[in-house]
Amino acid sequence: MSAFIRPDLQAFAAYSAHAITDVQTQPARVDHLDTNESSYDLPTPLKEKLAWEYQQVIQANRYPDGGHEELRAAIANYASQAIAETKLRVTANQVTVGNGSDELIRSLLIATCVGRSGSILVAEPTFSMYKVLAQTLGVDVVSVGRDAATFEMDLAAADTAIATATTPVRMVFMVSPNSPTGNGLTPAELDWLRNLPTDILVVVDEAYFEFSQASTLAEALNRPNWLITRTFSKAFRLAAHRVGYAIAPSEIIAILEKVRLPYNLPSFSQAAALIALRYAPDILTTVAEVQTERDRLWQALQSLPGLQTWPSAANFLYCRPTTQRLDDLFQQLYARGTQIRQTGGGLRITIGTPAENERTLANLHQALES
Amino acid sequence: MSAFIRPDLQAFAAYSAHAITDVQTQPARVDHLDTNESSYDLPTPLKEKLAWEYQQVIQANRYPDGGHEELRAAIANYASQAIAETKLRVTANQVTVGNGSDELIRSLLIATCVGRSGSILVAEPTFSMYKVLAQTLGVDVVSVGRDAATFEMDLAAADTAIATATTPVRMVFMVSPNSPTGNGLTPAELDWLRNLPTDILVVVDEAYFEFSQASTLAEALNRPNWLITRTFSKAFRLAAHRVGYAIAPSEIIAILEKVRLPYNLPSFSQAAALIALRYAPDILTTVAEVQTERDRLWQALQSLPGLQTWPSAANFLYCRPTTQRLDDLFQQLYARGTQIRQTGGGLRITIGTPAENERTLANLHQALES
Repeated sequence: MSAFIRPDLQAFAAYSAHAITDVQTQPARVDHLDTNESSYDLPTPLKEKLAWEYQQVIQANRYPDGGHEELRAAIANYASQAIAETKLRVTANQVTVGNGSDELIRSLLIATCVGRSGSILVAEPTFSMYKVLAQTLGVDVVSVGRDAATFEMDLAAADTAIATATTPVRMVFMVSPNSPTGNGLTPAELDWLRNLPTDILVVVDEAYFEFSQASTLAEALNRPNWLITRTFSKAFRLAAHRVGYAIAPSEIIAILEKVRLPYNLPSFSQAAALIALRYAPDILTTVAEVQTERDRLWQALQSLPGLQTWPSAANFLYCRPTTQRLDDLFQQLYARGTQIRQTGGGLRITIGTPAENERTLANLHQALES
Repeated sequence: MSAFIRPDLQAFAAYSAHAITDVQTQPARVDHLDTNESSYDLPTPLKEKLAWEYQQVIQANRYPDGGHEELRAAIANYASQAIAETKLRVTANQVTVGNGSDELIRSLLIATCVGRSGSILVAEPTFSMYKVLAQTLGVDVVSVGRDAATFEMDLAAADTAIATATTPVRMVFMVSPNSPTGNGLTPAELDWLRNLPTDILVVVDEAYFEFSQASTLAEALNRPNWLITRTFSKAFRLAAHRVGYAIAPSEIIAILEKVRLPYNLPSFSQAAALIALRYAPDILTTVAEVQTERDRLWQALQSLPGLQTWPSAANFLYCRPTTQRLDDLFQQLYARGTQIRQTGGGLRITIGTPAENERTLANLHQALES
């Protein structure tokens, strides 16, 4: 490879959501329970509305609205509703939108660490894109562990890591509920985040907020160094459209607006997110079903011998086999038609439709017995 | 601002396509001739097909195809058609797609210059995003001038710049035809690019290829250090959908695939680009009209006193007032309803519909006389 390419990128492995290796048997039907999507498409009337809007309103030949004014205002309004009791309101200038949360993570890395010394802190296992995107940008990643039983971040290790990092830690990424392990932030973790020096940016990724209904948003609005990311890809069923957003003090948002690509969000994606917010109650009807199904599946998995399963506040469950090899169990499930994600030394299972979850349970049962 | 934000970003001005300052009079109607879009929406039957596909085929709740297999193959086929006489073919593994060319430029900067010393070379005036995106990534930009009459790159200055750059030049960006000046690569420029050491990546941005029908693609396929970028935002009338692509040796493409965001292109944008390629003859019918209108408007502008106008191989014209202040002329045109782009010490005027071009001419005429 030519010298114009960074040598460290040659050996670098790209992110891959679907790592199915050595599969001998291709199943006839596959339940896609590996990326924490909703198993339900948008309601038909909303797809009709969007199709109409594409034909009648959107001009394919014109660049999208690069300022996202309408969408940012609608997101601010939606986010404010959930913190109504605090009397706080999110304003449009505290919101920025991205091509999924991925672009927001990249913008944050660029805004804090690129072109100067700097590193980020993550507690693994967690969402792998923080590390992947940092590595593509040559940004150091400081990784600490989590408690083996509760997956709470190892706070002492985190303190030590920040104190001894060779490049200053400029950003801490925490997912709440964490992916893949499903646990929300604990009081101790929250206190630890609150006590971080304000020259470290605290990023709380609330991709699964609608399922957990727990948020640090109200707190973030009062802190100069907190930022929340969320997405339309999970509860809002818009993964195909790639819309994520961040909420933070307007000074931070202004910097992220400078860093992002000027036309980062296609017109149709903006329209889809706006429709989703306008009809949020119709779309979020599936959230209660997912919560019920999650708790039902968790109960059922608890009784399976050879499997340790953790409680979850999100739309997925995390488990580890106690007797079988992890990869064997993963491959067997895939061969039976249940595609889940192997990550962090365990298996992350998205909650699907009731029928899909039944198959997940049956396939797990059989795979553990074989 | 807190220390977690890079100090250099605080003073940095974001890209803005529509810089209208100090406008006293808001015109009743505005012709949008400032971003080199097509003035024509997609044909209605194609929008209908896309609307149908959204309702019947695309699952809003599922992540897009992250490998873009079908789209990359279709782009390879389209690009191959234009070089059929060479017997060369572009293959899908020589193609990568991005959220507009912007994302490709960012990926190129990341792959070559981020996390180590490195700079890029541009000849100004040119497309401003190279510099803007480099600056957001803390990458040095080496800028050389162009000939005052022909806008050919100052090749001697470029040689000196490369030899004396404080950080090694890893990439040269050339637009052909250049924006905003409309000139294609000259034989001398091509020779200069060919003779660059192969540890410098040559990027030829052919965003306006369909209007110029001149391309270095066949040559690029035989060189280890050449890369072509193109877009669906201009002749293909898909600016709203944000799809750009790059063609290069598969080894370079493999690196760009690692660097890009995993789900960078919404499902609907992929569908739109596929439809556009399938019905390319129906969409590209407007290219001939634009070429005719461009040449007609160029002739007409030539006869306007107080204006110097350059020939163009793209869908825009470049001109400079010789007696009036540039900004005065720009503001007067806007006040009369012709919104164009002020850049590089001149005015870039997108070719619109015949009626729009008539108004451009009339408004220029009046503005120059006032």
